[in-house]
Amino acid sequence: MFKVTVRDHIMIAHSLRGEVFGPAQRLHGATYVVDATFAGPELDADGILVDIGRAAEAVCEVLGRLHYRNLDEEDAVADLAGLNSSTEVLARWIADRLAERARAGDLGAGGRALTGLEVTLHESHIAQAAYERAL
Amino acid sequence: MFKVTVRDHIMIAHSLRGEVFGPAQRLHGATYVVDATFAGPELDADGILVDIGRAAEAVCEVLGRLHYRNLDEEDAVADLAGLNSSTEVLARWIADRLAERARAGDLGAGGRALTGLEVTLHESHIAQAAYERAL
Amino acid sequence: MFKVTVRDHIMIAHSLRGEVFGPAQRLHGATYVVDATFAGPELDADGILVDIGRAAEAVCEVLGRLHYRNLDEEDAVADLAGLNSSTEVLARWIADRLAERARAGDLGAGGRALTGLEVTLHESHIAQAAYERAL
Amino acid sequence: MFKVTVRDHIMIAHSLRGEVFGPAQRLHGATYVVDATFAGPELDADGILVDIGRAAEAVCEVLGRLHYRNLDEEDAVADLAGLNSSTEVLARWIADRLAERARAGDLGAGGRALTGLEVTLHESHIAQAAYERAL
Amino acid sequence: MFKVTVRDHIMIAHSLRGEVFGPAQRLHGATYVVDATFAGPELDADGILVDIGRAAEAVCEVLGRLHYRNLDEEDAVADLAGLNSSTEVLARWIADRLAERARAGDLGAGGRALTGLEVTLHESHIAQAAYERAL
Amino acid sequence: MFKVTVRDHIMIAHSLRGEVFGPAQRLHGATYVVDATFAGPELDADGILVDIGRAAEAVCEVLGRLHYRNLDEEDAVADLAGLNSSTEVLARWIADRLAERARAGDLGAGGRALTGLEVTLHESHIAQAAYERAL
Repeated sequence: MFKVTVRDHIMIAHSLRGEVFGPAQRLHGATYVVDATFAGPELDADGILVDIGRAAEAVCEVLGRLHYRNLDEEDAVADLAGLNSSTEVLARWIADRLAERARAGDLGAGGRALTGLEVTLHESHIAQAAYERAL
Repeated sequence: MFKVTVRDHIMIAHSLRGEVFGPAQRLHGATYVVDATFAGPELDADGILVDIGRAAEAVCEVLGRLHYRNLDEEDAVADLAGLNSSTEVLARWIADRLAERARAGDLGAGGRALTGLEVTLHESHIAQAAYERAL
Repeated sequence: MFKVTVRDHIMIAHSLRGEVFGPAQRLHGATYVVDATFAGPELDADGILVDIGRAAEAVCEVLGRLHYRNLDEEDAVADLAGLNSSTEVLARWIADRLAERARAGDLGAGGRALTGLEVTLHESHIAQAAYERAL
Repeated sequence: MFKVTVRDHIMIAHSLRGEVFGPAQRLHGATYVVDATFAGPELDADGILVDIGRAAEAVCEVLGRLHYRNLDEEDAVADLAGLNSSTEVLARWIADRLAERARAGDLGAGGRALTGLEVTLHESHIAQAAYERAL
Repeated sequence: MFKVTVRDHIMIAHSLRGEVFGPAQRLHGATYVVDATFAGPELDADGILVDIGRAAEAVCEVLGRLHYRNLDEEDAVADLAGLNSSTEVLARWIADRLAERARAGDLGAGGRALTGLEVTLHESHIAQAAYERAL
Repeated sequence: MFKVTVRDHIMIAHSLRGEVFGPAQRLHGATYVVDATFAGPELDADGILVDIGRAAEAVCEVLGRLHYRNLDEEDAVADLAGLNSSTEVLARWIADRLAERARAGDLGAGGRALTGLEVTLHESHIAQAAYERAL
């Protein structure tokens, strides 16, 4: 199995609803350093799993919908409305958007042969969350 | 599959028995930077896999039994007695203690729905060992 | 010259006023991983520059005034009111609070012999800012 | 499952054939920081998965065939001839060489009991590729 | 004193002339992860030392003259011709180009008030070189 | 000013005398990841500050006197006898040994032109100490 990982980041504001979150129920924020890992069993004729340039662009575009935003606002990211924007939920949201792009061919022909995807969000030097899914 | 990772560390003394260890047969020590990764397929009603605060506390408490100790001493950590405290053995010991806590409900309701656990010990900038198990 | 550095972090929301900030004029947020470096020419009788435990506590307490807050709110951090909470301004604010504590003896006797202080805020994997001052 | 990871690096020149590579079609180079992860379900009588010293030596020797070389040269690495030396291809080449050594007993008795191997090449602070295989 | 650091990278091929370089006399290559640190005693009216976006652009443009190139070629980088492109020499070359841009106003008004500059090139996980200069 | 940094590590056991150290008064241990930075204003005829290979060897040899040892033992490191082997004291001890080697010509001709030296010991992901001196 081959894997290719690209790194980018977002800086967002949000609050989390639920007693379990303690002081994180207040409006605060986070930098998420995002690692998107694409996986598949075969390389293409060029000897690559996926065009790393197109992968980086796709990640940057997906993250662009969250970057520099207050995720508590109704219209910030429609698909997140009503959900806590926890690190886990954001990891899944980003992974699902990247999966749509891979299937739509936005990652090139190689993107269509990918079989898995993992998105990890590093929220500090001591905590991170990830979501892994099939493609 | 979702994953949440928290990081903490311990500083211990020990020696390793067996020719294979060369100079590490002498009494020496290590800082282990410990990453504990909790995994499960579902988020709870709050949109999280596990309460990261409780997870960090559980890791800190388990590591507290090793921190600032000489693992060669009989009474340092009873369950390790008679075993080489190699990085692999320590990773398994920590993972097994965390598994007990997850099953006992110490990680909250979410902790009971976890399906896997991985503990990685970074012993330097060039070496690490991990133990991965089901829950 | 000796230096001791401890690391901690904060997660805040804020917005920045001024065209130069582009999309960062919107309410967003950041995780700042904070390195506080204490410097001085001499070690004390115990062979240390400063008690690293007390230094870490002082950093944690100072950061506690910012952690999980929206820095745009009037009453968030009084001393920041009216200023852009840029990474540079926050680094200076934290350094100045730590300097007050060192002079007040909160870092122990060793803290009074310190001659310099540097606070670095890592805002992502590709950007950081710092403020360095005498004590 | 236990895992042991050792880190080393190579500095190579190469060019990549194919329009998809854009400016990387020119002769350029890379430092690859290489993580080799050995996996297996059981520890040996010494309490280790594999002798970390022998593992590090094996990785260093395999990398020695690539280090400080121009991979475009015919005789640089025979087994790579005719293939693009993409990060993915290099990860597989290194993993396959390490697998041969494990089977040949170069990693000691423990090496023969390994069941899997993953090699990750970090090509910058924002991109990496890996190859994972059974043993 | 305030400091702002931005990170970027280049991937180049080169060889080094001189017995001291051993196997690095062969054509090989490197990824240099580049940290450019801008320093100055005062913040501007916006509360920043330098516009981090313009700083990142300036670094990217300067590095663009080296990225994906073979530095041994006559016309690669004219100013380097005849010099060993050691990590130290490259750090100085990049710092001098950034200094020209700061003086020319390419970093904005804030850039003209900068008093110092340091460029660090990380060539692997175990080695780096830097050049520090006044502005 | 040019700087060259090489990284290596040691794994030691020790205890610290003095109430200020709390649980670190017990015999425990540490991995110190060591960065040795050599500084000087001029490059030699080869375009380097110091031969990085010789610098790395010198660091490895100096660290070899501490690696895999119990620093509490009388004969472990004679020059440390009677002193607490705090991170600060170890940083100075290593820096002083490297300074002797630089002056003795062990770093080559370039080593004699060095003007400064800084040694940083990372004892965990959240704490480090350094010693900086002239040459």
